[in-house]
Amino acid sequence: MASQSIEHGAGSPPPKSSAHTWKETALGALRGVGQVDFQASLWCSLVILVALWVAGWEIGLFATIGAVVATLTARLLAVSHDSVTQGLMTYCGVLGGIAMVVYLGNHPSTYVMAVCAAVTCTLVTATLGTLLTPFGLRAFTGPFCLVSLVMVLGAPSFERVWHGTPESAVTPATPKSPYVSWTDLWQGFFSNFSQIFFVETWYVGLIMLAGLFLAGWRVGLFAVLGSVVGILTAWALGAPAALIGEGIYGYNAVLTSLAFGVVLLRATAWNFAYTVLAAAATTALTASLSVLFEKFGSHTFTWPFNIATWALLAAVPFLSRITLLADDS
Amino acid sequence: MASQSIEHGAGSPPPKSSAHTWKETALGALRGVGQVDFQASLWCSLVILVALWVAGWEIGLFATIGAVVATLTARLLAVSHDSVTQGLMTYCGVLGGIAMVVYLGNHPSTYVMAVCAAVTCTLVTATLGTLLTPFGLRAFTGPFCLVSLVMVLGAPSFERVWHGTPESAVTPATPKSPYVSWTDLWQGFFSNFSQIFFVETWYVGLIMLAGLFLAGWRVGLFAVLGSVVGILTAWALGAPAALIGEGIYGYNAVLTSLAFGVVLLRATAWNFAYTVLAAAATTALTASLSVLFEKFGSHTFTWPFNIATWALLAAVPFLSRITLLADDS
Amino acid sequence: MASQSIEHGAGSPPPKSSAHTWKETALGALRGVGQVDFQASLWCSLVILVALWVAGWEIGLFATIGAVVATLTARLLAVSHDSVTQGLMTYCGVLGGIAMVVYLGNHPSTYVMAVCAAVTCTLVTATLGTLLTPFGLRAFTGPFCLVSLVMVLGAPSFERVWHGTPESAVTPATPKSPYVSWTDLWQGFFSNFSQIFFVETWYVGLIMLAGLFLAGWRVGLFAVLGSVVGILTAWALGAPAALIGEGIYGYNAVLTSLAFGVVLLRATAWNFAYTVLAAAATTALTASLSVLFEKFGSHTFTWPFNIATWALLAAVPFLSRITLLADDS
Repeated sequence: MASQSIEHGAGSPPPKSSAHTWKETALGALRGVGQVDFQASLWCSLVILVALWVAGWEIGLFATIGAVVATLTARLLAVSHDSVTQGLMTYCGVLGGIAMVVYLGNHPSTYVMAVCAAVTCTLVTATLGTLLTPFGLRAFTGPFCLVSLVMVLGAPSFERVWHGTPESAVTPATPKSPYVSWTDLWQGFFSNFSQIFFVETWYVGLIMLAGLFLAGWRVGLFAVLGSVVGILTAWALGAPAALIGEGIYGYNAVLTSLAFGVVLLRATAWNFAYTVLAAAATTALTASLSVLFEKFGSHTFTWPFNIATWALLAAVPFLSRITLLADDS
Repeated sequence: MASQSIEHGAGSPPPKSSAHTWKETALGALRGVGQVDFQASLWCSLVILVALWVAGWEIGLFATIGAVVATLTARLLAVSHDSVTQGLMTYCGVLGGIAMVVYLGNHPSTYVMAVCAAVTCTLVTATLGTLLTPFGLRAFTGPFCLVSLVMVLGAPSFERVWHGTPESAVTPATPKSPYVSWTDLWQGFFSNFSQIFFVETWYVGLIMLAGLFLAGWRVGLFAVLGSVVGILTAWALGAPAALIGEGIYGYNAVLTSLAFGVVLLRATAWNFAYTVLAAAATTALTASLSVLFEKFGSHTFTWPFNIATWALLAAVPFLSRITLLADDS
Repeated sequence: MASQSIEHGAGSPPPKSSAHTWKETALGALRGVGQVDFQASLWCSLVILVALWVAGWEIGLFATIGAVVATLTARLLAVSHDSVTQGLMTYCGVLGGIAMVVYLGNHPSTYVMAVCAAVTCTLVTATLGTLLTPFGLRAFTGPFCLVSLVMVLGAPSFERVWHGTPESAVTPATPKSPYVSWTDLWQGFFSNFSQIFFVETWYVGLIMLAGLFLAGWRVGLFAVLGSVVGILTAWALGAPAALIGEGIYGYNAVLTSLAFGVVLLRATAWNFAYTVLAAAATTALTASLSVLFEKFGSHTFTWPFNIATWALLAAVPFLSRITLLADDS
């Protein structure tokens, strides 16, 4: 999913299964943290991982468990060497691990569930590889969304897994006022980066943004663009200011902006406009999907990013004005 | 989607982006009105457009906004010349524009939303082109259904967009009696044509039917067939008579009958039977989907037509008895 | 779907429509009963059919109606000879027929609905053939799940079809205690086989298991494995003991185990482990899907089996360790 990943074809079945060293596997697990934001850079991954531990030891620990287990699963099942070492089989496990502790609470059974979630994330990453490649699409964080959807829906049915809704999963009643304060604005701007990892703390987002700039100034700038477009769109539509301040309306736009701006499209003015439009569409979609998932007791996760990006990427072959980076080679 | 569209392959990415004249673009916008019913005929489109303005200036205006914006979007993004001039990128925008005023009410913000809906309809038409072409399917009105689903679900979350449920979107409590009166019958027969465009007035449907006969006697007859099969199926199953009279149970059957009877299948007895079966299946599906969409606060739109037609069209390669028009060439 | 079906390619459109004798058609209808469990064996099919009549004349009769109508539909529409005679167009109709009497009750209209369900199951089997073959997947019982979903959702809207929820469709309030008794265990073990056909009676399951062993010791053993894995997983997660005893948590695992163990994968240790994991994942998924379908008034049917098997089968091309039987040829 990183720019590197385009050449080595994360989207096609492995030509051969090759030897892994443990060091490569460990680097794959680390890179998986950055790959959530499409970055294979080790420094970027390290900074984001530090930010997760800063957010709280539980977040950090479950992210680490997810990364390690997902990577080991991929290695054990002999997924292609490059996919594993670039973290492409890992990033969904990172998010899946965090989702478990956020939505199930920190109980012994949650550790088991985090392991299960990470294993399943790796498998579903392969599934979406098969299902989406024929359309020129990639899995993005879809596997994490699917696995977490299923786990969060099913958990309350099982006595040994479910110990009541944890505090971290309670959405407090938010005031619906659309009048955005300065605090909402700047905190929202940073929370948009951390909310990708279920964290609502602005300085965690700040550290993550620093990590993204480490991966490249272009990466950092498109992350900033996504955050700004997300806030502006949500404000223009009249979304509740409190949710804007918590990053709820912007984290998907950040991912969409990174996807189109850095990974998928060439650097042209038309493509830049398309990226802005995609980030805005993602923000609007966030409300629809929140309503939908609330109806049957699940959560939005990064569905808006995935659905908007899949839809707008699949449209590109018909739109001569928009040009894919992949067509360069 | 019209019979013309089969040859010039609306389903494949454009071979070249060619010059458009403004006149061609305008004709494309007009043809988009007829393409809702699969017709590229200018006269047919004109008559249906008149019928929409007869139904009310708001319906007419928003349909026109949708047609113009969707067509301009396609031209701006350099969609292939023929798709634009035949109205194939326009018809979903027409329906999307009307849906906005029906479900959001006539407010200044609704004009902005209609523009957004039309732009998105054009993009999602391209998306479904990519996703469905490998299966030999076409987008039909799926893009409109998807965009309207998302907009109607999300709108109440946004203060600046949502001004309460408008009168036009309120479904009055209908008596559940299945005993169909003569008035239900003949009004339903005509409303089945207008209900495709969210209009419940029988004489609007009558004008539209005249437009369809202008496009060809075969077109008119299959529209009539769809309407009759829809009413008979709904009556046989015991649907509420009031809904039959409002065209709720028949408008999808009209579209399915036009799709299979005029656009997709050759003129054989077996294919005729398959068309009738498809129209009946569409009617039955209407109830299931209405229940489903009501559960999470959306609407049926033309989902039953799309889903039934996709399913039964995808089945054809396995059924030697049923023969596609496309295989002639 | 049986092991035989792999060679003759149930997944590709018919090369030619060939003559059917009535005897072949009749055998196809009978084989359809066994094909629910992936078996084309006539003896196995006969034993399962007997078990269905033992479960009650209504179950037996509607299964028979479904089998006959689905097979005749396929023959009438000239589906390829082998698909029909191997029962591959029939098995969904068998389940669809039973579902109608269970969820609508035994009324005259239900016979009409069973015929409609069987016809639609055959058509949707063809649909999924077209949609899934490009991904290397097969329809499994997906057509039955889709058709029953639609019928159960839509039925209450139609006066002439709906006569109130029948006793057979009422789920009694189950105690949520996860403490499994010995009776729960052994009754659940056998009910897991019968629950595939909506039957909760342990000795019906016992007869069916005997039928599976008739089709081959390997078939019987993987059915046993699925049932055991289903019970163990449900117990470990803390599912309500009463539901385990009724086979609710295990019937999908039986199908998944048969699919991966007998039909899809080669006999290696890694593949065996993957089959166990798939059966466990299916069981966990059962809870999520039950919650989901309950929300909008439908039922779980064999969705967990289909979704888990599609997902894990689509993942295989990326997992060098797991090897498909189909790659042998």
